[in-house]
Amino acid sequence: MLKNDLILRAARGESTERTPVWLMRQAGRILPEYRAVRNSLSGFKELVETPELAAEVTIQPVDILGVDAAIIFSDILVIPEAMGLTYEMVEKKGPHFPKTVESIKDIEALKVAHPEDLSYVYDAIKITKNELNNSVPLIGFAGAPWTIFSYMIEGGGSKTFSKARRLLYSDTALADQLLDMITESTIGYLKRQIEAGADMVQIFDSWAGVLPATHYSRFSLKYISKICDAITEVPITVFAKGAWWALEEMNDLDCRTIGLDWNMDPNSAKKILPNKTLQGNLDPCALYGSNEAIKEETKKMLSNFGNHPHIANLGHGVYPDTDPEKVKYFIECIKELSTH
Amino acid sequence: MLKNDLILRAARGESTERTPVWLMRQAGRILPEYRAVRNSLSGFKELVETPELAAEVTIQPVDILGVDAAIIFSDILVIPEAMGLTYEMVEKKGPHFPKTVESIKDIEALKVAHPEDLSYVYDAIKITKNELNNSVPLIGFAGAPWTIFSYMIEGGGSKTFSKARRLLYSDTALADQLLDMITESTIGYLKRQIEAGADMVQIFDSWAGVLPATHYSRFSLKYISKICDAITEVPITVFAKGAWWALEEMNDLDCRTIGLDWNMDPNSAKKILPNKTLQGNLDPCALYGSNEAIKEETKKMLSNFGNHPHIANLGHGVYPDTDPEKVKYFIECIKELSTH
Repeated sequence: MLKNDLILRAARGESTERTPVWLMRQAGRILPEYRAVRNSLSGFKELVETPELAAEVTIQPVDILGVDAAIIFSDILVIPEAMGLTYEMVEKKGPHFPKTVESIKDIEALKVAHPEDLSYVYDAIKITKNELNNSVPLIGFAGAPWTIFSYMIEGGGSKTFSKARRLLYSDTALADQLLDMITESTIGYLKRQIEAGADMVQIFDSWAGVLPATHYSRFSLKYISKICDAITEVPITVFAKGAWWALEEMNDLDCRTIGLDWNMDPNSAKKILPNKTLQGNLDPCALYGSNEAIKEETKKMLSNFGNHPHIANLGHGVYPDTDPEKVKYFIECIKELSTH
Repeated sequence: MLKNDLILRAARGESTERTPVWLMRQAGRILPEYRAVRNSLSGFKELVETPELAAEVTIQPVDILGVDAAIIFSDILVIPEAMGLTYEMVEKKGPHFPKTVESIKDIEALKVAHPEDLSYVYDAIKITKNELNNSVPLIGFAGAPWTIFSYMIEGGGSKTFSKARRLLYSDTALADQLLDMITESTIGYLKRQIEAGADMVQIFDSWAGVLPATHYSRFSLKYISKICDAITEVPITVFAKGAWWALEEMNDLDCRTIGLDWNMDPNSAKKILPNKTLQGNLDPCALYGSNEAIKEETKKMLSNFGNHPHIANLGHGVYPDTDPEKVKYFIECIKELSTH
């Protein structure tokens, strides 16, 4: 039994003594303890692929920051890699795929990921669960099919994602074929994360915001929905950054929690999503302010979410140059201000 | 008198025989004729700063594509440069400022742009007007203060614009001081563009979408509003990419037209902005589709805007690898399908 199950209860829509809190990218560059581990290695991927070390950096923010959940340290791009498309993590630039998907031949060269290919992730989850010793829940995760698809076509980040979006107009069948393979890979992957011990899972649709509404429904939500239908074991959170127009349709997803970015208004979201727990959504830049300003912004955010089931978080991953003391202060504010 | 004043009449909310159409970035890399001029020069800035050549590429799309307006070939970053912050245009990477604004000292080293510093733009406008020979209107433009501010602080594009956004939390007074200087510079600049012959002007808020709603109102719309109040000579269009939450507040801007990006729903926008002309908003990626698909998407878009005053455009600048034949076909479709 978990000693602190606030997040799980909030995800189920139950009332809690106070609002639970964690931060996207809490395990990462903001912590000197993380940088020490990272700098002892040849690269980011070595950390992702070494279960003992991935577990170590996963647990750091629980001990140091006092968050109410751990999230397994990994990367959404392990899925395309397991499908046959290797990525590199380029320092200060982000991910890069030396080979990208351009044609049916490229898709035929890929396979649906075999869950066993990612055993280092499940091993990291098992070690983490053991070391957490039931203190807080552990969150597993994966990228949404549309976001993974974008990386596989673009080969990295992009200002417009016009190559990936192009395919949705020029070859729908090809797009669906790849999205299907990613979806199937992701379902197997999440199921194994849960078997290994993940108490809940989050689906990150980082590039949701580049699609027109009709395409988002047709090429992204459709596949997220398949994942939600297949994962029945634990509560699911869907975070579709920038897809403000899709909140209403997200009501129909078989998931418990919807993540909001910092552009979205909690008061509208509450009305649009009466039966979902909401997660978010402080502007990560608010943590650059003074303690007084952070408290003020946190108070405003909590008051906007009101009595609606809520998991406090930022509206995006914490920015790497954020002072960890400010992060701690934000977490303290949530705990103090939300206690009934 | 202009032979084709469809856009001006649509901007004033008058009914027109058909929907007028132009494309953001129509003067640029999609045209081989543009690339020929550009490749004969040392760089992008030489083209911007040589009035005869800037006029030549401004007129190209009117002749070649059949659009209903020309937009002066220039760059929004001429304003920070005239304020004292030089930029470079790095091939395939975009703009880069070797020096950025980090402190009050950096701001004190800047000046409000003297309109005369940008005489090459007014000269280009005069030559263009003369060569257009009253065939179609000429659009002038400037960046919105928030977008220019972002570039001056970040030194270029950014995934998160966290440096620029940081200042809005950490030093409001400093942010306002710089935004005020940019606003004053922009008003003088637009007025001189109009004196030189611009028939309407557009304000581009390219990075609107990164701000939380309250900050957008406080640090962007406030300054856009000052510009709109100061420019009374010609109709103004405001295009705030990604700021879907701000449409309602944009009702209060003293401008005629609001540009919509391809995420925004024309049907909602019509209701939110009953007294504004709307501009946009086909997904630029739709032009990668077949002619049949382009026609279908164009028909859908026109039907969504319905009888509301409308200037057809894409929801973003045309992507550089778009086939000019597809652009021509889109323009033909607008002309054919919207004729009463």
